[in-house]
Amino acid sequence: MKEKNTPPLFGRVALIGIGLINSSLARVMRRDGLAGHIAACARTRKTLDKVMELGLADSVTTDPGVAARDADLVVIGSPLGTYAEIAQHMASSLKPGCIVSDVGSVKESVIRDVGPHLPPGVHLVPAHPIAGTEHSGPEAGFAELFETRWCVLTPAAGTDAAAVEAVADLWRRAGMKIQMMEASRHDKVLAITSHVPHLIAYTIVGTATDLEGDLRDEVIKFSAGGFRDFTRIAASDPTMWRDVFLTNKEAVLEMLSRFSEDLIALRRAIRRDEGQTLFDVFTRTREIRRGVVSAQQHIPPKEPEDGAA
Amino acid sequence: MKEKNTPPLFGRVALIGIGLINSSLARVMRRDGLAGHIAACARTRKTLDKVMELGLADSVTTDPGVAARDADLVVIGSPLGTYAEIAQHMASSLKPGCIVSDVGSVKESVIRDVGPHLPPGVHLVPAHPIAGTEHSGPEAGFAELFETRWCVLTPAAGTDAAAVEAVADLWRRAGMKIQMMEASRHDKVLAITSHVPHLIAYTIVGTATDLEGDLRDEVIKFSAGGFRDFTRIAASDPTMWRDVFLTNKEAVLEMLSRFSEDLIALRRAIRRDEGQTLFDVFTRTREIRRGVVSAQQHIPPKEPEDGAA
Repeated sequence: MKEKNTPPLFGRVALIGIGLINSSLARVMRRDGLAGHIAACARTRKTLDKVMELGLADSVTTDPGVAARDADLVVIGSPLGTYAEIAQHMASSLKPGCIVSDVGSVKESVIRDVGPHLPPGVHLVPAHPIAGTEHSGPEAGFAELFETRWCVLTPAAGTDAAAVEAVADLWRRAGMKIQMMEASRHDKVLAITSHVPHLIAYTIVGTATDLEGDLRDEVIKFSAGGFRDFTRIAASDPTMWRDVFLTNKEAVLEMLSRFSEDLIALRRAIRRDEGQTLFDVFTRTREIRRGVVSAQQHIPPKEPEDGAA
Repeated sequence: MKEKNTPPLFGRVALIGIGLINSSLARVMRRDGLAGHIAACARTRKTLDKVMELGLADSVTTDPGVAARDADLVVIGSPLGTYAEIAQHMASSLKPGCIVSDVGSVKESVIRDVGPHLPPGVHLVPAHPIAGTEHSGPEAGFAELFETRWCVLTPAAGTDAAAVEAVADLWRRAGMKIQMMEASRHDKVLAITSHVPHLIAYTIVGTATDLEGDLRDEVIKFSAGGFRDFTRIAASDPTMWRDVFLTNKEAVLEMLSRFSEDLIALRRAIRRDEGQTLFDVFTRTREIRRGVVSAQQHIPPKEPEDGAA
């Protein structure tokens, strides 16, 4: 399926799980001719039919072992709770020199769940391309998803340098910036920037869902700035997010405790009419926004009403 | 300043406070020739100079009484905490038949803070155009801000029908849909759709700000989907939001209690590895998102990474 004159980065690539991220990666590999053969694995025939229809793979299977056989690169892109079983299933199919990577939002658990199952000579290079939308499934993917975003790699110390570089090169081709990081540190950073915000969004949308009937209808009708953003976040894939919280439990609970303490302090300030406390906190948060903007993680909102009160 | 052949809706309009909302309203009135004369009032000369430079008003003053004298319509657009004093200051300048309205995000407090100061024959029609951005000040406004959004009017029972209709007509000209509602009900709905989401966004961005130095730097660098949305919300005007929380205290505290209980339940589920509980909540929240989308309060996100994990 090579479409350019440069040789493919990898001969055979196995994509285990082919939702938003892996299907977007498949599109990048197709576009740039990065893989000699793409083998896609999914749990259901329905998904695999869709993958073939979309032309995202050269072969499809429901068996991770079949997909991974003779692969030069395996990329796990299924919910984190499936990793251990997948690793177990495909272990005996992996050839020496194969690179096993993934796209999960938690990284310590990959080393814990996948590492022990891999035969000697197979390289584990966990990766987290920080990109996504609230949509899921292979039809939701697109090749431009990764452009200008960060991809964090968290290989254990002593991992084969060439294997790490090969994974880095793949994501660079997808348009990403590469950052090396310790897995435990990655999990702490993502807990506060992504996991806890998602949990909060799920919570407040749930709180609104539980309101008395007609009040709930009006909440939907007049969903202004803040809440509408939250409903988008809270529309994300339930299975994927369940597994994120269960696998990054320690860091999420730690950051959630800090958040809860801070929220209680603000609630207390409101109850006691302490306007200055509120003003000070609200002023301070503008600073971090400036940091985010200058770190170019910001894309200006398209719509004017996002801050509606 | 009439620019069309239809007569202006109002002879003299006084805009008390001219930030994002009132300056956008001024632009609409200019564009469509809705006001014979626009008098702008702000606390500082700097703001008033900017207003004249932008051509948003025919006269400017720092005195609400001067602006309101002989006005047919007064629109208060300053932080909610200033309403009582403004009403007191301008009361003696108001002519019979004048309509006093506002654009604040809390409505019961308007009736409480402004109502008692108005002389007989002056009509109070509180309004909340649900639109905004995280930017503030007269230079941040634009005439299209209100298009397709809701404007909620909360006049007390028995308010002059022609006055209510005049205010409704103004906001319709700005492109808004009009909804009549009781003030107390408005305040409850907005507490959950807007006020509590903003408080939460301020809180979590504050929590991140308090992280140890190098961890905080990485949080800014890798601010993914959820968190970046939150930083935008948390960049909103501190004074305006302080006053929102203090004036809508009861409803905010009530909704905040519900939210906190729900968050504790999810935290408990994470701690006890209760995946099914998490999955059920996350699945249920997709429904309300569908409601928001079908209520046309949703505009598709421009950028692909908004749901990044």
